[in-house]
Amino acid sequence: MGAHISDIRHHCGLVGFWGVPDAAKKTYYALQALQHRGQESAGVVASDRSRIRSKKGLGLVSEAIRPRDLVPLAGDIAIGHVRYSTTGTQRIQNIQPLVIEYSQGIVAIGHNGNLTNARTIRADYEARGSIFQTSTDSEAFVHLMADPRNLATPDPLGAALREVRGSFAVVLMTRDRLIAARDRLGFRPLSIAKLGSGWMVASETCAFDLFDAEHVRDVDPGEIVEFGEKRGSGEEKGSDPLTARGSDPFSSPFLSSRRFAPPPQKLAQCVFEHIYFARPDSRVFGRSVHKVRYRLGEILAKEHPVDADIVIAIPDSGNSAAMGFAQASGLRLDRGFIRNYYVGRTFIMPGERSSTVELKLNVVREAVQGKRVVVVDDSIVRGTTSRARLKSLRSAGARELHFRISAPPIRHGCYFGIDFPDPAKLVAANRTVEQVRDYLGVDSLAYISVDGLMEAVRGTREEFCTACFTGDYPVKAEEDMDKHAMERRT
Amino acid sequence: MGAHISDIRHHCGLVGFWGVPDAAKKTYYALQALQHRGQESAGVVASDRSRIRSKKGLGLVSEAIRPRDLVPLAGDIAIGHVRYSTTGTQRIQNIQPLVIEYSQGIVAIGHNGNLTNARTIRADYEARGSIFQTSTDSEAFVHLMADPRNLATPDPLGAALREVRGSFAVVLMTRDRLIAARDRLGFRPLSIAKLGSGWMVASETCAFDLFDAEHVRDVDPGEIVEFGEKRGSGEEKGSDPLTARGSDPFSSPFLSSRRFAPPPQKLAQCVFEHIYFARPDSRVFGRSVHKVRYRLGEILAKEHPVDADIVIAIPDSGNSAAMGFAQASGLRLDRGFIRNYYVGRTFIMPGERSSTVELKLNVVREAVQGKRVVVVDDSIVRGTTSRARLKSLRSAGARELHFRISAPPIRHGCYFGIDFPDPAKLVAANRTVEQVRDYLGVDSLAYISVDGLMEAVRGTREEFCTACFTGDYPVKAEEDMDKHAMERRT
Amino acid sequence: MGAHISDIRHHCGLVGFWGVPDAAKKTYYALQALQHRGQESAGVVASDRSRIRSKKGLGLVSEAIRPRDLVPLAGDIAIGHVRYSTTGTQRIQNIQPLVIEYSQGIVAIGHNGNLTNARTIRADYEARGSIFQTSTDSEAFVHLMADPRNLATPDPLGAALREVRGSFAVVLMTRDRLIAARDRLGFRPLSIAKLGSGWMVASETCAFDLFDAEHVRDVDPGEIVEFGEKRGSGEEKGSDPLTARGSDPFSSPFLSSRRFAPPPQKLAQCVFEHIYFARPDSRVFGRSVHKVRYRLGEILAKEHPVDADIVIAIPDSGNSAAMGFAQASGLRLDRGFIRNYYVGRTFIMPGERSSTVELKLNVVREAVQGKRVVVVDDSIVRGTTSRARLKSLRSAGARELHFRISAPPIRHGCYFGIDFPDPAKLVAANRTVEQVRDYLGVDSLAYISVDGLMEAVRGTREEFCTACFTGDYPVKAEEDMDKHAMERRT
Amino acid sequence: MGAHISDIRHHCGLVGFWGVPDAAKKTYYALQALQHRGQESAGVVASDRSRIRSKKGLGLVSEAIRPRDLVPLAGDIAIGHVRYSTTGTQRIQNIQPLVIEYSQGIVAIGHNGNLTNARTIRADYEARGSIFQTSTDSEAFVHLMADPRNLATPDPLGAALREVRGSFAVVLMTRDRLIAARDRLGFRPLSIAKLGSGWMVASETCAFDLFDAEHVRDVDPGEIVEFGEKRGSGEEKGSDPLTARGSDPFSSPFLSSRRFAPPPQKLAQCVFEHIYFARPDSRVFGRSVHKVRYRLGEILAKEHPVDADIVIAIPDSGNSAAMGFAQASGLRLDRGFIRNYYVGRTFIMPGERSSTVELKLNVVREAVQGKRVVVVDDSIVRGTTSRARLKSLRSAGARELHFRISAPPIRHGCYFGIDFPDPAKLVAANRTVEQVRDYLGVDSLAYISVDGLMEAVRGTREEFCTACFTGDYPVKAEEDMDKHAMERRT
Repeated sequence: MGAHISDIRHHCGLVGFWGVPDAAKKTYYALQALQHRGQESAGVVASDRSRIRSKKGLGLVSEAIRPRDLVPLAGDIAIGHVRYSTTGTQRIQNIQPLVIEYSQGIVAIGHNGNLTNARTIRADYEARGSIFQTSTDSEAFVHLMADPRNLATPDPLGAALREVRGSFAVVLMTRDRLIAARDRLGFRPLSIAKLGSGWMVASETCAFDLFDAEHVRDVDPGEIVEFGEKRGSGEEKGSDPLTARGSDPFSSPFLSSRRFAPPPQKLAQCVFEHIYFARPDSRVFGRSVHKVRYRLGEILAKEHPVDADIVIAIPDSGNSAAMGFAQASGLRLDRGFIRNYYVGRTFIMPGERSSTVELKLNVVREAVQGKRVVVVDDSIVRGTTSRARLKSLRSAGARELHFRISAPPIRHGCYFGIDFPDPAKLVAANRTVEQVRDYLGVDSLAYISVDGLMEAVRGTREEFCTACFTGDYPVKAEEDMDKHAMERRT
Repeated sequence: MGAHISDIRHHCGLVGFWGVPDAAKKTYYALQALQHRGQESAGVVASDRSRIRSKKGLGLVSEAIRPRDLVPLAGDIAIGHVRYSTTGTQRIQNIQPLVIEYSQGIVAIGHNGNLTNARTIRADYEARGSIFQTSTDSEAFVHLMADPRNLATPDPLGAALREVRGSFAVVLMTRDRLIAARDRLGFRPLSIAKLGSGWMVASETCAFDLFDAEHVRDVDPGEIVEFGEKRGSGEEKGSDPLTARGSDPFSSPFLSSRRFAPPPQKLAQCVFEHIYFARPDSRVFGRSVHKVRYRLGEILAKEHPVDADIVIAIPDSGNSAAMGFAQASGLRLDRGFIRNYYVGRTFIMPGERSSTVELKLNVVREAVQGKRVVVVDDSIVRGTTSRARLKSLRSAGARELHFRISAPPIRHGCYFGIDFPDPAKLVAANRTVEQVRDYLGVDSLAYISVDGLMEAVRGTREEFCTACFTGDYPVKAEEDMDKHAMERRT
Repeated sequence: MGAHISDIRHHCGLVGFWGVPDAAKKTYYALQALQHRGQESAGVVASDRSRIRSKKGLGLVSEAIRPRDLVPLAGDIAIGHVRYSTTGTQRIQNIQPLVIEYSQGIVAIGHNGNLTNARTIRADYEARGSIFQTSTDSEAFVHLMADPRNLATPDPLGAALREVRGSFAVVLMTRDRLIAARDRLGFRPLSIAKLGSGWMVASETCAFDLFDAEHVRDVDPGEIVEFGEKRGSGEEKGSDPLTARGSDPFSSPFLSSRRFAPPPQKLAQCVFEHIYFARPDSRVFGRSVHKVRYRLGEILAKEHPVDADIVIAIPDSGNSAAMGFAQASGLRLDRGFIRNYYVGRTFIMPGERSSTVELKLNVVREAVQGKRVVVVDDSIVRGTTSRARLKSLRSAGARELHFRISAPPIRHGCYFGIDFPDPAKLVAANRTVEQVRDYLGVDSLAYISVDGLMEAVRGTREEFCTACFTGDYPVKAEEDMDKHAMERRT
Repeated sequence: MGAHISDIRHHCGLVGFWGVPDAAKKTYYALQALQHRGQESAGVVASDRSRIRSKKGLGLVSEAIRPRDLVPLAGDIAIGHVRYSTTGTQRIQNIQPLVIEYSQGIVAIGHNGNLTNARTIRADYEARGSIFQTSTDSEAFVHLMADPRNLATPDPLGAALREVRGSFAVVLMTRDRLIAARDRLGFRPLSIAKLGSGWMVASETCAFDLFDAEHVRDVDPGEIVEFGEKRGSGEEKGSDPLTARGSDPFSSPFLSSRRFAPPPQKLAQCVFEHIYFARPDSRVFGRSVHKVRYRLGEILAKEHPVDADIVIAIPDSGNSAAMGFAQASGLRLDRGFIRNYYVGRTFIMPGERSSTVELKLNVVREAVQGKRVVVVDDSIVRGTTSRARLKSLRSAGARELHFRISAPPIRHGCYFGIDFPDPAKLVAANRTVEQVRDYLGVDSLAYISVDGLMEAVRGTREEFCTACFTGDYPVKAEEDMDKHAMERRT
């Protein structure tokens, strides 16, 4: 994607460990493997079974947390979170995991997704005198869990999860437990791995590879998975507030599973994870991301062939698809852009127009000069960045430019965790493909079809959410979703 | 006092502005004038009538907040707080003013004092599902204010203040109002001044002098004073949640006053403010602090005369009383110690025993050598610092040491905002004066009497709390006061 | 290269501007484009024709210098430097550009390369009473320039440059001039561009592209190029100490050129710039780096063909060559590794073994599983990193591994600016190719030939230094080169 | 003095240790005891007999150096420096001690004073090709020591010290020696103490008191004192470049003394050390500073008696003299100002007029209201600060103000280390006492006489420099002294 910094921002990355030495340090490394899912803040919370300690900060993991900050974070249980805010502004209180204390003790929670009834929940609780600490939708979980009504049920956490709407993958931690859950439609990914005699959960499997942890399976939509020592019958009842009474052991004495919602008739897994969000070396929703993207390129080449000299990618998001395109088309793959990896997030000088784009990608003039060039990218959002980059190819002497996109046109907003801009700013929302082509100044433009997309992911529209392309939302948003609606007015 | 850093720590300082340009900057300066009341953290919250913005940090005002941090804090309303924690550990969330959002909007609050039923209040609210953000007693105010029961009364703030026990001076701020209140017994000071066409409140009048603000009067015990534009009748009702409906205008259209408690039969003003806490250039509870201290020295000289060569002070807390002592006794005043003012809060090197005392005060050998010396200090708490300093005088060749204390022996704990150590560590708690004299290694030791103290403050035991000397507590502490009881176990 | 962080470190990057508005800001951006040439320190020096101001710091450009640091660096002349120390430890004084004052005024200098007679020069000057500020070889330039013997010649700078041995590209700056020079054999690159009505010089042309500056030509080996206003005849003589008297104007009134050494019979351009150092989007020594690398891959495929399923690169250094290899061999290109670009320079936790490699590169299991894989990398230095990465491919299920290297075996040290490890640590120094193959645990291993390398760069051994492969040094090192020999013993 | 921050700035403070465990840590503490002598920068250099390590920074000692910075500074030899620049701007290179390497090895040097022929020396050396690192006059020492001419003499350090003019107290350190010296007229103080089995030197004896070090004597004017192990005859010759060959042992095997200049006929000890610079708890030039100041007050009361109600000091510089004045006059001493010790060095907000004065000192209204007040201060420089403070007393209701100054009028510049403003800005330079009184707006003004001053210090004009009062300079300044003349034009 031409502009993942300015156009789409990743949502969040989650990680959790149970029964693993140096859990906080491992969390720190794992969050760096998930850094592409959120660069605005990072947090680590650890428990040594007695005390819960945390460290959070703004920026990249390596900026937010210094290795020495982890020294006090002892213990074999930890969770971590990287975030780009889909709701809530960039305030220190909003950094997750949230660590809160309520009548049942301390719990930490990290959330990836977007709750569509969070404002209603908040208004209800505020009317009853509750006070909210953050401007994030994620805090709704905590108030629901602390509600005496839910505490009176056999599974207070399950009761709380049943009350929220929208998308969520969550990791929770008490002094001695790690808990993971996904919403009933499975919007956001969350996977489980075995690590030594303990367990690990993460948004993407690439985090498992750091430790050679063995990917066991994913958390099921509508499932709560709990990691912890089995307690004696005497203390079992209610001894941990997040543990449902009577829940059954699952695949090992340390892992139990229960459902808070019945098995779904259909799923709404976010197809954009495969198109753009996830790392190519991850398996997401049971598929290799790289292989899906490579197939997207192949299918795109078949759907929209073109006579040209070379194929180039917009790095890095278009790399896999460009390879597939070159292979299927028989055209030669070359490098049209070089990315400067040292320029992570260039601040713009006061009084300067942005130089971010120019610093990050530079054209290889000798590669494109005089050539008919197929340019492969993963998606187009606003179109401004794509346009600038295509223009720089033209300036470098490219004779023809054929832009091929491994996603269908994005025409609708997302209420489930992707921070697309206002639909009015989506270049494809109110334009024909020909109008977009004209805007971008290319000789031809083509997007993959939704059917082609489904073929590449080897799935169906009953399994994946494609609402941003089709407008066919899997659930009705119960509120007028405004990601800033919940903001304090401070 | 020989050891205000290690022995007693000041509680808190409050300041507030309404209708004053650059209110945040003025708050910043005023907090520096009140810096002696708290060095652990500082916070400023400002409103431009539309948005409320805040900046807080750990350490001295000049460390916690940089001038450029104030640039965004626009507006003519602001409150500020410096703190030494009497409850709650040194965590970033605990820094005041607390800024919270509840059903009625945003409110910021700064508190000086100690609530004795805060744990009970917290337990009640947690049982009802509420979540607490801080480990401070001050958060109780907020939950009481947000409680629908109190919101249903004509004066929700008054209702909330009636439910708390213990000591408090508070400043609150909404988008367009500044509110100040003191507990019904008036433990902690809070004064009002006129500044241009606006208003200022502060814990001590020395903060007014920075701006040549005119000290008008003190907030009365049991009184709520509110600063803000008079609202039209249409929007008056409940338009500001902290404003009682039907409260009457006071001395100007912009100032209203109401009582949340009937005028008290007796007061419990903290006499330690005059002995040690307050700055000598302040007026506290209607008296000049310097003059009270000077009279303490005079009375002490009369109660416990001694034949000696010179009078010296333990700087700076004994300076005013030493002058009064020298004047009343006819003995010559000299300087026995020089204080190094650059050594504010020396951190101790890892693996070193403390060098704080030695760095801060150094003996003037030539002044005391061969002399019979009267040493005047304001109080003795643990006695360890006094002992070290007296010993250094002896090492420098002082022939006789006569220690005179401008407070009675401290023998009892304080539940109303002074962070005395555990009574078991008070040197006078279980020792006779002779035993303390022996411990300190001086030739004579004498304390002022409680009657002498009352004479110096020109007050009575019905007006001042003297519990730390007499054990005669003005109210029963309803809970076992443990300042850390409320701590999260994180 | 498998391990540019631990094995080879880039030397330095230079940039300079003359007659260009906001020269310091442009230098800041340009240094980021050259960041791959040095990550240890960065410095910017600017002149507004009246005052010279500088800012330097340790780390990446974005760490060493904040945008607001540039605000005071006014003027239209500036030079900048990024550095990995080839001599001198990481001390603040060693950060370049050096700014020094001597009898002729102030001069700033940035140097890329390595002087082989710096220790002798230093000893000579110290014996005469001179004092050295840094432990870098670069300071030798300054003392030579300040020497009255050289000042007495018509071209003191030329005289100084004639006395140093070894490799250098240098940029110098006085209050109103910018000067660039290269050693007589042209070891290190330095190019000239026109930018508006002013000029720009840089180690690599990729820095020009940021500003759409037009690459005019390179500084010639043995040439001094000077940018500045022509001075009136009255003040011309000696008015700028670095300007040779009587030097002739070159291509414009603002650019003059002179030689400090006769045109060389042969050159010694560093071929490693093309193999690994330079950015693929640069032109270096008149050749496109990407195209050279692509050809290296093609030639490698022809010299050492292999029957396999896929070709993968070690990213990013092997990317261009892998493309060329796939194209020439007809094998399918795939992605075997995904690089985590957020992990720039991971600090290792105290008490942890390095996790750097694992965090940076992760295998795409699905791409390599069961496959016969050709792995293309640019070079092998110590071999440890390569070995670890190849092992991770094997662990992921690669059936065969064929390692292809687009450089000949590195068997000799470099005295001209590349910080190779001690030859004893070069894996190829004392091993046959078969022994290296065995050490790396691959099924086959092949390096490009020196002739193949020359074919790819379209040059001859008379034009390029290939000493690290052949041991055939273009000049005799006059001293026992020890990059730390010059260190102060502080 | 009403304005030591804006009017006079202290020069420098020196400290050195030899043969004392944890010498760097002790230096750190000792520099804090000398903090009043310089707040712009601080530096510590330590030797473990093998390596010399240093840490320097801008600001107060506690800002410039963190305790953990000292961890690597091992060894039992160290020197330290705090500085307010009398020459050289506030640049990091200018921070002392300077650590330089020359032909004889490494030497560190700290300097208090001002060399009047530094520009000539610099010009000479620059003409010979030498390069200067700093813009301080102190660097002249180093170049003289490195000069082969001086190295050829039996005592190169003595030869170097004979070539400089002006004022200096210096401490030098090599890997195994500590050396201290004072200029031949003894302008600046430097004292020696015994500490355990080692030695300590410091600008003021108050630094000795921190460690209970025993003040032995002062370094004599024209003397070089050297601390170090006696070396065997074999290695003695020239083994340490700063050790004169053949110098004789002094009072112990570890201390030697030699003269670089004959005993002086007269001295020029700076009387301002007693009036204002030194801490009252120090002994300087053999006199107790507090007692001198107390006597200044007594003599002032006798020279210029006044009928008044109270005596107050401008704190803290007037405190001792005010006590003496009150005692001699029989008037009552009171506190007219309270100083806010938390406001060390208030930065002024952008766009604000200074609030420094108001934040630092506040009037005790109740003490001065309606009173006839004698105000005692140590000196008047520009007069602006005094004027503002006297005005604030008037505003608080003082009925009469009688200003008494314990120094004569300052009418001449200082070339020997005091950073007075330009004489044109000295309020007394071109005004009669009556005109100054009128400017200050007081009812009477009187200065002590020069004879009274000499009586108080119990010395003569042959022993003390009184040039700032009398214009009678002890030596001719050989150059047009301009403290910024040596500045680089950077």
